[in-house]
Amino acid sequence: MRVAVLGAKGKVGQTMVAAVQAADDLTLSAEVDAGDALTELTSSGTEVVIDFTHPSVVMDNLKFLIDNGIHAVVGTTGFTDERLAQVREWLAAKPDVAVLIAPNFAIGAVLSMQFAKQAARFFESVEVIELHHPHKADAPSGTAARTARLIAEARKGLPPSPDATSTGIEGARGADVDGVRVHSVRLAGLIAHQEILFGTEGETLTIRHDSLDRTSFVPGVLLGVRKVAERPGLTVGIEPLLDF
Amino acid sequence: MRVAVLGAKGKVGQTMVAAVQAADDLTLSAEVDAGDALTELTSSGTEVVIDFTHPSVVMDNLKFLIDNGIHAVVGTTGFTDERLAQVREWLAAKPDVAVLIAPNFAIGAVLSMQFAKQAARFFESVEVIELHHPHKADAPSGTAARTARLIAEARKGLPPSPDATSTGIEGARGADVDGVRVHSVRLAGLIAHQEILFGTEGETLTIRHDSLDRTSFVPGVLLGVRKVAERPGLTVGIEPLLDF
Amino acid sequence: MRVAVLGAKGKVGQTMVAAVQAADDLTLSAEVDAGDALTELTSSGTEVVIDFTHPSVVMDNLKFLIDNGIHAVVGTTGFTDERLAQVREWLAAKPDVAVLIAPNFAIGAVLSMQFAKQAARFFESVEVIELHHPHKADAPSGTAARTARLIAEARKGLPPSPDATSTGIEGARGADVDGVRVHSVRLAGLIAHQEILFGTEGETLTIRHDSLDRTSFVPGVLLGVRKVAERPGLTVGIEPLLDF
Amino acid sequence: MRVAVLGAKGKVGQTMVAAVQAADDLTLSAEVDAGDALTELTSSGTEVVIDFTHPSVVMDNLKFLIDNGIHAVVGTTGFTDERLAQVREWLAAKPDVAVLIAPNFAIGAVLSMQFAKQAARFFESVEVIELHHPHKADAPSGTAARTARLIAEARKGLPPSPDATSTGIEGARGADVDGVRVHSVRLAGLIAHQEILFGTEGETLTIRHDSLDRTSFVPGVLLGVRKVAERPGLTVGIEPLLDF
Repeated sequence: MRVAVLGAKGKVGQTMVAAVQAADDLTLSAEVDAGDALTELTSSGTEVVIDFTHPSVVMDNLKFLIDNGIHAVVGTTGFTDERLAQVREWLAAKPDVAVLIAPNFAIGAVLSMQFAKQAARFFESVEVIELHHPHKADAPSGTAARTARLIAEARKGLPPSPDATSTGIEGARGADVDGVRVHSVRLAGLIAHQEILFGTEGETLTIRHDSLDRTSFVPGVLLGVRKVAERPGLTVGIEPLLDF
Repeated sequence: MRVAVLGAKGKVGQTMVAAVQAADDLTLSAEVDAGDALTELTSSGTEVVIDFTHPSVVMDNLKFLIDNGIHAVVGTTGFTDERLAQVREWLAAKPDVAVLIAPNFAIGAVLSMQFAKQAARFFESVEVIELHHPHKADAPSGTAARTARLIAEARKGLPPSPDATSTGIEGARGADVDGVRVHSVRLAGLIAHQEILFGTEGETLTIRHDSLDRTSFVPGVLLGVRKVAERPGLTVGIEPLLDF
Repeated sequence: MRVAVLGAKGKVGQTMVAAVQAADDLTLSAEVDAGDALTELTSSGTEVVIDFTHPSVVMDNLKFLIDNGIHAVVGTTGFTDERLAQVREWLAAKPDVAVLIAPNFAIGAVLSMQFAKQAARFFESVEVIELHHPHKADAPSGTAARTARLIAEARKGLPPSPDATSTGIEGARGADVDGVRVHSVRLAGLIAHQEILFGTEGETLTIRHDSLDRTSFVPGVLLGVRKVAERPGLTVGIEPLLDF
Repeated sequence: MRVAVLGAKGKVGQTMVAAVQAADDLTLSAEVDAGDALTELTSSGTEVVIDFTHPSVVMDNLKFLIDNGIHAVVGTTGFTDERLAQVREWLAAKPDVAVLIAPNFAIGAVLSMQFAKQAARFFESVEVIELHHPHKADAPSGTAARTARLIAEARKGLPPSPDATSTGIEGARGADVDGVRVHSVRLAGLIAHQEILFGTEGETLTIRHDSLDRTSFVPGVLLGVRKVAERPGLTVGIEPLLDF
C-alpha cells in the first residue's frame, strides 16, 4: 500500500514518516509539507494519505484528496459539525473514497472507554481516578470527564453507586460528573494515567491506561491506514475499526 | 418473576435464596434441596430455577425442568460434551424452554476475558500476572491459563510479544502458555487476583480483576435469571448475555 | 512464654486465643472473660496478658496486672492522655513491668505510615488515595487523614506539592489535609485500602496497603507479646518494636 | 554553596548543570570537561564537585579534589574495592574532606530497597515483580535480584514464604533468588518498574517504584551536594544521607 504523509516535517509528521518506513506492508510514497505541491500525491501513486497538518489547511487538503480518489486518515484538529458535513457532501460525489477523522488515535485510550461502556451496567459502583503531571491546568482531565459521561449514559436507569458518606472534609469524594465520582491526582514524575474502577459485592474490575509519551498514536494511525479503504465515506473516531 | 432455588440449603444455595429475596423484581417461589419433591417447583408456579446442586443429580433436575417448561440457570459443575448434547436433545422437543449453564458467573472475570480478547490484536506485547493465596495447588491458575490461550488464539498471525532476554535466572520470564507469558504470585493475605497487561510503544493498558469472596457470582446469576427466557435453547457461559 | 487472653470470648479475643495456641513459642496459660476472676492470671503463672476488653474495665485490668508483675499488650480503645498518665504512674512503682498500648496492631498500616514519614522530604509531590467499601461514613478515612498530617509534619519547611490546576470541577483535586491532597474512593467490593504516592521528576514511589479482613492485627499483637518485656514502662504504638 | 560539574558536556553532566542553575541555594561555579584544566575548580572557589565522567579519569579527578580540599559527589561507575581503598587512604590525610560515591542516585529506588529491608521480617510472604521494556537483556533485572537478596538476608532465620504449588507449568512461579520469588515482565510501552509485595493473613503491603526517565537521579545528586560536607571521609551509597 502506497502511503504519503501530509505535514511531514512537523513533529508528529516525522514520527509517522518513520512509522510508515518501518512497516513491512506499507511503502512511503511521498512526504509533503507547507510549500510543496499537493500534486506530488497524485504523481506518486499514493493510495492513502496521513494528514497531521493544521485546521487552516486541512479542508483544502481533503477536497483535493477526495477529488483525486485518495483515502485519508486525519489527526488534524478543529473539525466542527459544519466541517464534517462538508466532508460528507464531498464524499457523496465520490462513493469509493474513504476518510477517517479521529480526535484520539491512542488505541489504549479508545479501548479503555469502550470497555468502560461495556462494563458500566454490570457493577453496582464505578469511580474514575486520573493521574497527571502537575503542569496540567484542568481537573478533571477532558478524557476523564468524557469517560465519566459515557459511563453515566450507559448506566441510565440504574441506581447510583452506593455511598454512605455523611461526614468528612470537602472535596474528599472527588468531582461529580453526571453522578460518577472523578478524582484528579497531580504528581511530579507522572505523565498521563487513568483508572476506571468497577465494583460489586465480592469483586472489582479495574481498567488502567498509562500513556507514557506522544508516540502512542502510531499504532492507531497505522490501523487506520490499513483499514480505511474498507469503509468508504466518512468515519469519525477509530472505534468502528476495532471490530470485535 | 417467580424464581426457585435448587440446592437451597447448600452454601451457594443459601446465598442465592437471600439474593432472590433481596431483589425487588424477583419472587422466591420455592426452596428445594435433597429429599424434597421436584413437584414443589411446578406447584409453586416457578418460572426460573437456579440450580447449584451436584453433578450426580443435575441431569435429572434438568430433565424435569425442561419437561415442565421451566427455565434453568445452572452453576453446577461437571458438564461434559455428552451431557451438553443430551440437554440440547431434550430442549429440541421443547422449543420455548431456555437453559443457561455457566462455569463462571463472576461478571468481572468474564468481562476480563472478553476485554482481553478484544484488545489482543491491537498491542505489540501482552503478559498475564495472576496472584493468589499460598494454599493454591496449581500455577498458573486455570483462569490465567484459559485467558492466555484466548489471547493467543486472538493474536493468531501476529508476531510474538518482543523479548530480548538473553541471560538470567530460570523461571524469571514466567510460564509460556501458547506464546503468552504468565506469572504466578503466591502471597499470604491475597485471595484471587489477575492482571492482563497490554503494551505498545508509548502506552499500556491493564485489565485487573480482584475477586475478594465467593459472593461475586450473585450478580451474574441474577443477570442469567432475568435474561434466560430471551434465549430459548441451550446457552453455555454468560458471555452472550453481556450484550454490548 | 506463658500468655493469657483477657476478653477471651469476644470476637477478637477468640482469634487471639487461636493465634497463641498456633504459635510454637507461646503457651496459652488462661482464657479470661467477664465474670471470671483475674486471679486466674496469677495462679496460671501468666507472664504476658493480651487485653482486648472494654474501656470500662481495662483500667482495672491494668492495675491488677501491673501490681502482680504481669506484662500487658493492650488493644482495647479509649486511652485518653489522663488514662495514659495514670498507667505511667502505676508503672513507676513497678519498674520491671512493661505495658504496650496500641491503637492499631496491623503491621502493614503502621509500616505504611513509617515509610511515608521517611520518604516525605525526598519527593516534590505527595498525594494520598484511600479506597473503602461504600458503607463507610467518613471521608477521608481516619487513617488517611492521620497519614496526611504525618507527611505534612515531615515536610515542614519544604514548598508545597506543585499544582497548576486553574480550571475544573469542584472536588476533583480531593480534600486538603494540612496541604496534602487526599482522595476517597467508595466502591462496592472493596474493603480497606490506601495508596501513598510520592513523585519527583522522572520517578514515582507508591506505598500501598490492602487490609482484607480483621485478622490482620494478629502478627502485630504476637510481635508485641514477644517483645513487650524488653521495654519496661509504657510503650504507645507498635512502631518502637519495629526496630530497624 | 559553590558547585562545579565535572563532565559538564556529557548528557548527565548537562542535566546536572541545569539542575544546579535552577536551585536557589546553589551557585554554579564551573563547568569542566575533557581538555579543561582542573585548576578551574580551585580558581573558581568551588566547594563541591559533581563528577559524572569516566572510570579512566575519575581517580585522577578525586586525587586533585581531595588534595585541594574540595568535596565530591560521584556518579561515575567502576569503583572496585581497590579503588575505594585508595580513596579512603587519600582522605585519611585530609580529614575535613568528604567524598560520596553512589552507584544509584534515584531516591525512589534506594528508598524502595530500604523499606523492603525494614518490612522483610514482619510478613509471612514476600515476592518481587519487576517490569521493563522488551529490549532488556537480563531477567531478572539487577535491581530486582539485589532487592531479593537484601530481603533474603533480612529474613534469615524465618521460615520461607508459604507455597503449596504442586502442579503447573514450568516457570510460572518465577525465578528463585535466595528463596525469594522474582517475576520479570517485558512489555512494549514500559520503562523500568518494580513492585515488592509483602503479605500476611488479612493484609498486604506493596512498595512500587516507577522510573520513567533518566532525570530521576537529579534529586539524589542535589541531596548529596547539600549533605556531603556533613560526612567527612568516604560515604558509599546515598542511604546514610536519608537520615530517618
